[in-house]
Amino acid sequence: MTTTRVPQTERTRAMRARLLEACVEVLAERGWSGTSTTVVSQRAGVSRGAQLHHFPSKTDLVVAAVEHLAAVRRDELAAAVARLPEGEGRTRAVLGMFADHFVGPVFASALELWVAARTDPALLEAVAPFERHLGRETHRLAVELLGADESRPGVRELVQATLDLVRGLGLATTLGDDTARRGRILDQWAVTLDRELARPAPTEEHA
Amino acid sequence: MTTTRVPQTERTRAMRARLLEACVEVLAERGWSGTSTTVVSQRAGVSRGAQLHHFPSKTDLVVAAVEHLAAVRRDELAAAVARLPEGEGRTRAVLGMFADHFVGPVFASALELWVAARTDPALLEAVAPFERHLGRETHRLAVELLGADESRPGVRELVQATLDLVRGLGLATTLGDDTARRGRILDQWAVTLDRELARPAPTEEHA
Repeated sequence: MTTTRVPQTERTRAMRARLLEACVEVLAERGWSGTSTTVVSQRAGVSRGAQLHHFPSKTDLVVAAVEHLAAVRRDELAAAVARLPEGEGRTRAVLGMFADHFVGPVFASALELWVAARTDPALLEAVAPFERHLGRETHRLAVELLGADESRPGVRELVQATLDLVRGLGLATTLGDDTARRGRILDQWAVTLDRELARPAPTEEHA
Repeated sequence: MTTTRVPQTERTRAMRARLLEACVEVLAERGWSGTSTTVVSQRAGVSRGAQLHHFPSKTDLVVAAVEHLAAVRRDELAAAVARLPEGEGRTRAVLGMFADHFVGPVFASALELWVAARTDPALLEAVAPFERHLGRETHRLAVELLGADESRPGVRELVQATLDLVRGLGLATTLGDDTARRGRILDQWAVTLDRELARPAPTEEHA
């Protein structure tokens, strides 16, 4: 009874995935203003009708694309976490992992969306809660991977600063910043962060 | 002989300034894709002909606007520098000054330009050298204001990290990040930075 329905569902899912991946590619290559549902449909090899059926507006399409992206990034992060070394060099490896998270086409398309959302209330309403959720998730992962004890004063802020730093580095990279500079900054930050996270609490310090 | 020419030059300068300021406002309010030379001319109260005479293309107009912006920001920074306290609290005040530099309409319009330049080679060619110059200038100012000794290992990278951090915080702010979070991160960063900048050189440290 379901022999025709299952392949249909499969095809639908594959078509949605093609549209979302094409949308991310087009956002990264052409930016927000160069992205249209027509261009994305063509890139995905999906008819306009089918595209409009799944995603009636550009906002629907890009929001779904960025949620799809986030799932892909989450899987990529999980794979990167599994490759992290223990002991010496771990902090630097964790920083490198997060910094890599904020470069490349996936970050570029998210950046296009953030900046467009700044002046597009409907888009902002769709994107902001999702970004907040993702931000909290990334923060929790950073705390865990760095073995940071957030009950100690200042530690939470240092982890937040670390994520804001890699975001800032990602933004600089879009304007052609070099990887050598990034590498040196992360090297130094790993040393500082290890020192700060290992510091005794303020009361002990004065003993 | 020059009685008619001097006011003419004055009027031309005032008209250019109105166009550039209107362009910054429109970029901040409507984003890159919502900015057109027509909208800017209307906002500035300048005829299309006069606008096209001064700035033949959107790229010409926005690049000039951002250079104008940079001059305004330089003046604002100079004024903020004069108000910085000496001694205790100086590092935090310096960080606050730079962080303020990366929020508000001026940063928003620069961000629109950066992101648009990512996918617009002509715009990137106009913007990238200028941004590099501005980046070096900001770095020099940060070194001077923090009293950082860049001959010591790691200090240059910590100053760079500080500027990348405030840029990252600025980006978060465009999506509705709160000032309370920013304040706590900068408080902690000031403590860490003071500690790191005052550290003895590695050889002394082991003595």
